[in-house]
Amino acid sequence: MRIRYKPMRLGEIALISEYLAPLAVHPGAFGLKDDAALLTALPASGLVITSDGLTAGVHFFEDDDPGDAAYKALAVNVSDLAAKAARPLAYTLTLALAEAPTGEWAQRFTAGLARAHSKFGIALIGGDTVSARGAWWMSITAFGEACPRGLVPRGGAKPGDLLYVSGTIGDAALGLKLRLHGESFGSLLSAEEREFLRSRYLYPEPRLGLAAALASEASAAMDISDGLALDLSRMCEVSRVSAEIVVSAIPLSDAARTLAAAGADAMQTILTGGDDYEILAAVPPERASGFEAASRKGGVPVTRIGTVSAGAGAPKFRAAGGLELELCSKGFEHFKV
Amino acid sequence: MRIRYKPMRLGEIALISEYLAPLAVHPGAFGLKDDAALLTALPASGLVITSDGLTAGVHFFEDDDPGDAAYKALAVNVSDLAAKAARPLAYTLTLALAEAPTGEWAQRFTAGLARAHSKFGIALIGGDTVSARGAWWMSITAFGEACPRGLVPRGGAKPGDLLYVSGTIGDAALGLKLRLHGESFGSLLSAEEREFLRSRYLYPEPRLGLAAALASEASAAMDISDGLALDLSRMCEVSRVSAEIVVSAIPLSDAARTLAAAGADAMQTILTGGDDYEILAAVPPERASGFEAASRKGGVPVTRIGTVSAGAGAPKFRAAGGLELELCSKGFEHFKV
Repeated sequence: MRIRYKPMRLGEIALISEYLAPLAVHPGAFGLKDDAALLTALPASGLVITSDGLTAGVHFFEDDDPGDAAYKALAVNVSDLAAKAARPLAYTLTLALAEAPTGEWAQRFTAGLARAHSKFGIALIGGDTVSARGAWWMSITAFGEACPRGLVPRGGAKPGDLLYVSGTIGDAALGLKLRLHGESFGSLLSAEEREFLRSRYLYPEPRLGLAAALASEASAAMDISDGLALDLSRMCEVSRVSAEIVVSAIPLSDAARTLAAAGADAMQTILTGGDDYEILAAVPPERASGFEAASRKGGVPVTRIGTVSAGAGAPKFRAAGGLELELCSKGFEHFKV
Repeated sequence: MRIRYKPMRLGEIALISEYLAPLAVHPGAFGLKDDAALLTALPASGLVITSDGLTAGVHFFEDDDPGDAAYKALAVNVSDLAAKAARPLAYTLTLALAEAPTGEWAQRFTAGLARAHSKFGIALIGGDTVSARGAWWMSITAFGEACPRGLVPRGGAKPGDLLYVSGTIGDAALGLKLRLHGESFGSLLSAEEREFLRSRYLYPEPRLGLAAALASEASAAMDISDGLALDLSRMCEVSRVSAEIVVSAIPLSDAARTLAAAGADAMQTILTGGDDYEILAAVPPERASGFEAASRKGGVPVTRIGTVSAGAGAPKFRAAGGLELELCSKGFEHFKV
């Protein structure tokens, strides 16, 4: 005889006390047994604060491992801290579920948080669990110790500054496309390359190693979450400048390079697709060598991709021969008219 | 000829720049044009941090005015600060919408935030706008200046302490019932009384005036959000104590008193219904007169409802003659097994 067990489901109190509280070892978290958290010994330089929400079916797939989704939720928040040259300290999590989770779900979810804690050096200090109506969602608010100058602003780019990006651009958007359109899209790639692109979408890598370089040398910085083209245009708009990008200089992974060589579509995806979580930085020319040296010291590859220019026009993407590339869309907006 | 205009809908960028940014006047908000906010001149006593999420159809009605929902979202977060004797400073807001809002929706929503700003002395410093899949939702993280002792803990109640509540208990839960079950339920009440109960559900009043009394005199405090019975049992559990409540001492509004006199159901709702956002405090007997005086000075009525007792049993609710009242449920949990 085979007995089928109904998977055990957890109430709100059990989810918090059995699964989340053991992660909340920070003294200001009070074991998640109080109404609020307390941060003391606050940094004299200030506290950098960022909030990001993630919805199942929008920011990650409904059938993703909940631990991967939790890891990504923390990574995208920590990426904002990294872009501002802040050192991660703590975060609060609001978690909304449409139904009581199973113990297995809670175990996977908290395992993803734990992976992120040890990788990013950040601590859970509080939050809330509530009901969702529809897809499940998370909202995280992350706190970081500001660098001595406060934060590296988005709006500080000056004409003549050099524009740098970290890592390689477009992998996550190609990984998402690969996942959405199946194997046909990736038939040009090896199994390893397909796996590489998929993991770039699933596991963003906040560039915390760039903090010292940004803090001491950059005039402006932000993370690239909604696509290089859109986020660069945002930096330019706030800084009241424009920019010229040399498309051939944009650093690509081998997998992205293979796809870009095979057709123009991939290049559109690379320039306008989201989820890179690399850093875009503007650096005065006289600080370029210092920035590059500090980036190397931090273990983060950076590449110069263009220059900040005067004026208020949209940034220009120059292909070989100086021709301007026309982009079909600028990038990802959550709701458009 | 009549022309029907399609209501203008706002993209994500317009919602932020035209409606939310004008509210973000705090210098650390950078006009919502950066990736993160910066809090400087941080309080030496520490920063009290609380997060609360609200989902349409769960925490408020889908057809509520979006400004009322926004006001409530801020009020429930500020209520946690008030319970910890913290002074509100700033907050971040994650707002998730299933479709692009109209200008009218955005106007109503931000008007509700603005009402809360001026009432609670709190400032918008950052956040995120994302897509919802299903009902729209908000998650707020609020920051307050800690009182000199840090925060008034939930877990500090000692046997012999007197238990106090602010205001009146159960009005919001009765207001919700009135709204759900229409006029029949409230036929015993005047129109003014019905309106009073409804507004107690819609507009929670964080008891910020109680901060000085809590900071100097209370051994434990929390806000009552999920019902007096459940929240008291939580305070007792964390404090490793029990409690005896004199049901006849629980302060009721005239409307609640009328309904309680008419049937036992209303009393169950009063003791176990959520959304009061009054304060529950434990006060050592020798500090009771100081607590009462400081509460009067803060303009917040408080009433003694019982005593903290030794032991680990569930709190007892004693009716007239000392009989223990049996509660059908303890209060509101977001997901139960």
